[in-house]
Amino acid sequence: MLPLVTQRRARVRRLLIGAPLPSSAHEGQLLRKRMALPIFASDPLSSVAYAPQELLLILAAGGTALVAFTPLVATAVVTLLIVVVVSTRQLVRAYPSGGGDYEVAARNLGERAGLVVASALLIDYVLTVAVSVASGVDNIISALPGLHEWRVEIALACVAALVAINLRGVAEASKVFAIPTYLFIGSVLVMIVVGGVRDLTGSLPVAESARYAEHGAQLSQAAMVLVLLRAFASGCSALTGVEAIANGVQAFRRPKVRNAQLTLVAMGSVAITLFVGVTYLMLRTHVHYVADPCSLSGITSCDTYVQRSVIAQVASATLGGDRSVGFYVVQATTALVLLLAANTAFNGFPLLGAVLGRARYAPKAMLARGDRLVFSNGVLILGTAAGLLLLATDASLTVLIQLYIIGVFVSFTLGQTGMVVHWTRRAELLSRHGRATRGVHARRVVNVIGAAATSVVLVIVTVTKFTHGAWLVFLLMPVLWFLMLKVNRYYAAVEVQIAPDGSTRFGSSGDHAIVLVHTLHKPALKAIDYALAAEHASLEAVHVATSRSGARALRAQWEEMGMAVPLTILESPYRDVSTPLIEHIKSHRDEHGSEVVSVYAPHYVYGHWWEGLLHNRKLGRIEKRLALCPGVAVVLVPWLLDSTQALFERQPRPLVGLERRGVSGLPPVRRNSP
Amino acid sequence: MLPLVTQRRARVRRLLIGAPLPSSAHEGQLLRKRMALPIFASDPLSSVAYAPQELLLILAAGGTALVAFTPLVATAVVTLLIVVVVSTRQLVRAYPSGGGDYEVAARNLGERAGLVVASALLIDYVLTVAVSVASGVDNIISALPGLHEWRVEIALACVAALVAINLRGVAEASKVFAIPTYLFIGSVLVMIVVGGVRDLTGSLPVAESARYAEHGAQLSQAAMVLVLLRAFASGCSALTGVEAIANGVQAFRRPKVRNAQLTLVAMGSVAITLFVGVTYLMLRTHVHYVADPCSLSGITSCDTYVQRSVIAQVASATLGGDRSVGFYVVQATTALVLLLAANTAFNGFPLLGAVLGRARYAPKAMLARGDRLVFSNGVLILGTAAGLLLLATDASLTVLIQLYIIGVFVSFTLGQTGMVVHWTRRAELLSRHGRATRGVHARRVVNVIGAAATSVVLVIVTVTKFTHGAWLVFLLMPVLWFLMLKVNRYYAAVEVQIAPDGSTRFGSSGDHAIVLVHTLHKPALKAIDYALAAEHASLEAVHVATSRSGARALRAQWEEMGMAVPLTILESPYRDVSTPLIEHIKSHRDEHGSEVVSVYAPHYVYGHWWEGLLHNRKLGRIEKRLALCPGVAVVLVPWLLDSTQALFERQPRPLVGLERRGVSGLPPVRRNSP
Repeated sequence: MLPLVTQRRARVRRLLIGAPLPSSAHEGQLLRKRMALPIFASDPLSSVAYAPQELLLILAAGGTALVAFTPLVATAVVTLLIVVVVSTRQLVRAYPSGGGDYEVAARNLGERAGLVVASALLIDYVLTVAVSVASGVDNIISALPGLHEWRVEIALACVAALVAINLRGVAEASKVFAIPTYLFIGSVLVMIVVGGVRDLTGSLPVAESARYAEHGAQLSQAAMVLVLLRAFASGCSALTGVEAIANGVQAFRRPKVRNAQLTLVAMGSVAITLFVGVTYLMLRTHVHYVADPCSLSGITSCDTYVQRSVIAQVASATLGGDRSVGFYVVQATTALVLLLAANTAFNGFPLLGAVLGRARYAPKAMLARGDRLVFSNGVLILGTAAGLLLLATDASLTVLIQLYIIGVFVSFTLGQTGMVVHWTRRAELLSRHGRATRGVHARRVVNVIGAAATSVVLVIVTVTKFTHGAWLVFLLMPVLWFLMLKVNRYYAAVEVQIAPDGSTRFGSSGDHAIVLVHTLHKPALKAIDYALAAEHASLEAVHVATSRSGARALRAQWEEMGMAVPLTILESPYRDVSTPLIEHIKSHRDEHGSEVVSVYAPHYVYGHWWEGLLHNRKLGRIEKRLALCPGVAVVLVPWLLDSTQALFERQPRPLVGLERRGVSGLPPVRRNSP
Repeated sequence: MLPLVTQRRARVRRLLIGAPLPSSAHEGQLLRKRMALPIFASDPLSSVAYAPQELLLILAAGGTALVAFTPLVATAVVTLLIVVVVSTRQLVRAYPSGGGDYEVAARNLGERAGLVVASALLIDYVLTVAVSVASGVDNIISALPGLHEWRVEIALACVAALVAINLRGVAEASKVFAIPTYLFIGSVLVMIVVGGVRDLTGSLPVAESARYAEHGAQLSQAAMVLVLLRAFASGCSALTGVEAIANGVQAFRRPKVRNAQLTLVAMGSVAITLFVGVTYLMLRTHVHYVADPCSLSGITSCDTYVQRSVIAQVASATLGGDRSVGFYVVQATTALVLLLAANTAFNGFPLLGAVLGRARYAPKAMLARGDRLVFSNGVLILGTAAGLLLLATDASLTVLIQLYIIGVFVSFTLGQTGMVVHWTRRAELLSRHGRATRGVHARRVVNVIGAAATSVVLVIVTVTKFTHGAWLVFLLMPVLWFLMLKVNRYYAAVEVQIAPDGSTRFGSSGDHAIVLVHTLHKPALKAIDYALAAEHASLEAVHVATSRSGARALRAQWEEMGMAVPLTILESPYRDVSTPLIEHIKSHRDEHGSEVVSVYAPHYVYGHWWEGLLHNRKLGRIEKRLALCPGVAVVLVPWLLDSTQALFERQPRPLVGLERRGVSGLPPVRRNSP
């Protein structure tokens, strides 16, 4: 069953985002595992591109002595990753509906805790997009340094492209994403293997920045510990994205939980392998990566020195230099997978938005699925927020990373804690029924470890990043939290207001109609025609005289045309139409008792969006005022302008009156038939 | 006669912008001459703040040799100013309706020439705001260098303040503006007198930048001439604002033309005096002002050197140093009058917008006067455009000046040329009637000189500024020109479409009503109630089933409540409501002949703007689709939420049904009475 009206705008939309799908096609939109891996794993996998370098950057501030701690810090990060993957695997099984950490916290720790998680995740999804795009652009510029000036513009263009791709729907998106993701995994694995072999055979070159050295800083022990913790915190950015699978369980094909769990484990394994491999090569090629290139000793012109990303330097060293095919493959796939990592957020955010919308913590509009069964509003809001953030921070990765991962670790911590409560309740339930609780206790231990670890990381991350920009996140989270609570209370209040109770009486009576006439053109004539057809008990035409000459001309025209409907002309000392009209209606209702008054007003319908700037403004203001007047209903009589031709394409429309006489399908067409 | 509804929003608006005024109060809003001078003169007067320095800046590029030409260039600028004032004086008399250069060009040179002027002026008004605000902020920072980082934010705040002041209406604005303008005139005059006296007595100190010197550049003669011309072009920014009086003649009190002319002459005289005085002092105190401070010899740390504006340096030198009262007075009044010079544009732009709207070259919305008899849309559009421009250029005065005055000189040139044509036609008319034409010929000579002078300046300005940014203006002007022409042709086409002709037939008949029901809450019950009251020939309730459980529940509730209206449930394989509904209506019309179908839909009315994000979205989409369906009228039945309480303040509203029985004024109130 095709839609009645084909729109030219819809044609353009279809080109951009594909034909509409019926609800039954939903199953086909669900993900196979091998398609799901790229979608959900691109975030954690792409962290491999920047987590090692951010880790090194912070250690390098302490000089060569601290850089030696890199393997230790990296090991801590890997351990935490394993803990989080295992804990989330349990969560997915226990709460397969897709609410993720939010649902766990809401059900086990209370509404307010759930909203904390929701606000944290929403913010972090935006940051995921921003960080991934910034990092991707970094890598593009590492390969093509001439584009340096256009950082922000390229970043915004990438966000726009991601929005467009995601409006096309998940299944389409996954095809686009699968190839670069697998290429990335493949090329980095190849790089690691090649690098490992060359290292073992002693033929591993050093990176381009190996000839420099950090300035050794004399640090107290306390300061050293702080630097180590900050480095650990930055390295933990490798964990982001794991929670998105928990939000996306429903997007998998059946058996949904099992597939989600398998994908989760696969994702974790690959991520660990790549992270360890890149870090290893980073150390073996003696990469030096610092916050401020001028602090490197041995560097000649630090103003013009373009510090390339760690992955770029490692790939260049390992695979045969800047001109080698391997280098360009790694750079290209890294940039692509970073851009696509942003896509993990484009899956998680709208899904979370819909969950919140269903629970009335977000506008109901978040539930609206577009033609492609995608939560379009969520996609658009995420794109806009990420774009603004990139604009505000000049697409600077280092700035953005300071804001990052706070939200994720709030979510992890509360999610794991919620799971602990969940298993505790389950254990009580089982023991009450005399069943074994050992399995449950074991699961609970896992989540206890997870909660403890992530809360420690949360504290570390908060303390180390607070003054560097994280305070902003701690400002925004309560704001979002508050807004969501207010929206929920608002919808609840409205529900109460509109719930039917015994007090509602029928019995409005009386039926007066007014036709608003400004000049006697076709739209006005059509409105009069419709009002006559509805056979109201009484009918009058009303003109509000904003100029005397206009009123006189109308009266003359009225009499000339011999209009059967009586014309009332109202004075208007103010410039507006609404007030005299409302006064007139009120006095009518005072005289005739409270009748229902229907106000007929012609309403232009046009084919192009910009025509909206040129029409219907005055009518909109009048409508708003009339809505506040008791007993009034506004009847919009549409007048289709010629531009709506575009919307009708090939539908013939009979002349006024002809259709009624049984004649149809005649050109020329008048679109304003009765 | 008070408006029926007092709105809380209106209360806030009233605080911000004052109580609404009836049309008859318009006379009191017109300007006295002494109030008019500040309003219209603040633009030319404030140019005194930056014209001398921009002139010097360009000459300084050629070294000390070219700086010696400053008096010559300044004299040329003053001469041109006199010519323009005299020419405009004639224009004001000949075309007192306020169309200014636009009207002159349109009436004498044709529609397209008029639109060229209109586009040039619109762009230049935006630039006036941007340049004045940027210069004002410059002066603020010259007095308080610590604010340097917040340039753009301060500039945007100033624009916002100007918008708010102007929404309050002209008479109010003039009181605010009069004091700083007169203070500025007074303090600069005092500064000039003091400086002159000190100079004559040999006790004039030098400016702080006197100890530096420009690097002498070896320039060819052609290059020297070019530099002189560029300096002249920059100095001509002192002429901007003169045309605004021509747009504002109707804003004066009677006799309008004479008052406008007197104000014009007064304005010109004061501007010339201040310009000459400041330039004289600038030279005598040996100010050095350059584009790049690092090019000055004798300067130690050019990165941190804050180059203060010429007015600041002259005031400091003349009036006793940076801590003197005189210095702060001059700085403060200069900053204020620059900000207020932006206000000249806030008078000219909306007036021009209204003139264009009346002639259908701009959306009719430009004619809408707000509560305070101000063209609110024009004010808002100008504020937004200027804000965006400041944002894009980082509030940099030197960048903005390159775009400036092109539009003004296009306007001057075409206006003067139009006047020449005007006088020529008038001379022919007079000589055909045998009357003397000498006076007319004399007037024509004045305008010929004016046209020649301004066209020469236009060429100079274009050539010298083109590569520095003026190309942007030459890009935007045709775009605006094209848009205005298209809007005019569009409105004309619509007029043709809706003009009544013999083909319009009455005779829609049949009267079917549909009530859209989603759930059976109070708004839906009210809609059913109104539909029943209107006593349509046939009535049915329609529910589009987006979920089976919802449909079942509704059917059950319908039967439980014993609703008299038949309920039809439509399937919806797609997720939308519109398509099944439209199919249903079409099949009804196929069966019963083309009846008028009224679709009743409940429509939430709320008291706060943000509630709009939470309601009525789906209804809006349905309305749009229904408007394209022939024979359908949409009836909006308002349901007032509790938040509209704010809008009603102290109006008691009777219970449902009670009012009809003659009982009224009882609390508690239900706002949804029949």
